[in-house]
Amino acid sequence: MKTIKVIKIGGNIIDDDKSLESFLSAFAKLKGPKLLVHGGGKLASKMAKQMNITVKMNEGRRITDTNTLDIITMVYAGKINKNIIAQLQANKCNAIGFSGADGNSIVSEKRPTQPIDYGFVGDVKKVNTKTLEVLIENNITPVFCAITHDENGQLLNTNADTIASELAIGFASIFNTELYYCFEKNGVLKDINDDNSVVENITTETYKTFIADGTISDGMLPKLNNCFHAINNNVNKICIGKPSMLFEINSLYTTIQK
Amino acid sequence: MKTIKVIKIGGNIIDDDKSLESFLSAFAKLKGPKLLVHGGGKLASKMAKQMNITVKMNEGRRITDTNTLDIITMVYAGKINKNIIAQLQANKCNAIGFSGADGNSIVSEKRPTQPIDYGFVGDVKKVNTKTLEVLIENNITPVFCAITHDENGQLLNTNADTIASELAIGFASIFNTELYYCFEKNGVLKDINDDNSVVENITTETYKTFIADGTISDGMLPKLNNCFHAINNNVNKICIGKPSMLFEINSLYTTIQK
Repeated sequence: MKTIKVIKIGGNIIDDDKSLESFLSAFAKLKGPKLLVHGGGKLASKMAKQMNITVKMNEGRRITDTNTLDIITMVYAGKINKNIIAQLQANKCNAIGFSGADGNSIVSEKRPTQPIDYGFVGDVKKVNTKTLEVLIENNITPVFCAITHDENGQLLNTNADTIASELAIGFASIFNTELYYCFEKNGVLKDINDDNSVVENITTETYKTFIADGTISDGMLPKLNNCFHAINNNVNKICIGKPSMLFEINSLYTTIQK
Repeated sequence: MKTIKVIKIGGNIIDDDKSLESFLSAFAKLKGPKLLVHGGGKLASKMAKQMNITVKMNEGRRITDTNTLDIITMVYAGKINKNIIAQLQANKCNAIGFSGADGNSIVSEKRPTQPIDYGFVGDVKKVNTKTLEVLIENNITPVFCAITHDENGQLLNTNADTIASELAIGFASIFNTELYYCFEKNGVLKDINDDNSVVENITTETYKTFIADGTISDGMLPKLNNCFHAINNNVNKICIGKPSMLFEINSLYTTIQK
């Protein structure tokens, strides 16, 4: 069985031209099947501000109204995705940009409006890897932005971490699948202020303890829920850390185990 | 030899939700290999205005500066392209959105800055149809926006009519290739005010006459130059008219002949 690497990068790489450039140059050199998922970074909020579009909130959560969905589609699927593709081509990595609508690859359903109406946000319902497999067989790297569709013509905003885990799960029956969440820290930290205090691995058991003692909280919770969702659905290896975990020996990172 | 239809739609369809919806529903039903190229319509200018970005001109021609290129990338490759893909999926037509950077399918070079500096505008240098062929073999329809790249990481703004003719030429060695330019009129008109005065066909010879007597002028010249470029490079059939020429018997349209 061949191995595929599903790699998710977030705002800390996307928002900084130099970081993105050096990441893409290294990513292009990774051997074997691979797939990239990118978040949106701060550009969408900047655009909304420039266009005088107010970000709507409901009980402290951002609402994806029609204008916000348009901006997200323009920034994620347009500017960010196409510039990543052009840079990968410059690095001799043949890539194609995807939203979940392209190739009908990720079908989601609009989140119920009760108890909170999040607007055009989609929860993943189905992943179709057939087209992606054809491309990967032809040495083409799919690059996903965090947009899905409902098969009825509606685009939907979907969390990029979730897209990465759902794609990894989709590939798990045909590939030995590795899922990498790249972010600004060396992994899950025992002490948030010490980037060397990395928890080397987290199991279902220790996860509970870390939640109980507050080691894992807030923003890390949904990311780790995605990790455990993936590990419980046949994804073989899951790592959280800086992008260096992909390219350098002796990098620190956290792995997730059952 | 199989037949492929390369179809270009412009602003008159893109700018009107109802027209676009009905076009895409009919396009989805077209049998056999097909490829869609879309222009950008008025949305990019509207966006520029909303973002307080002034359109720069040089000797009466619009200049694609960095801001304009960003807007074009967001609007064409993001909003317009992804909404077309979502609508095609809703019509059971499996489609994938492309810029020329995706799959390295259209390589262009930045137009020389002399005598006029048009900014980030690309003239097509090379078309790679290999990835597109793989997708078409798998019943997937590529949908192109009018953006190309230079293989060095730079996206470039390229005329959508040119993209359609260059793609058609690229396919001409492996497909019986038909190129359709859809616009707001029934074809090339003898009398601009009479939509029934369609010139049924134009040859290299009659083209010269029509230019000399003023029947063909202004905006139609580059479109027709693209047509003759295609017909002289093995494209088998070229038609100009309303989208109805694709779907209805007895529609009026203009064909181009050698």
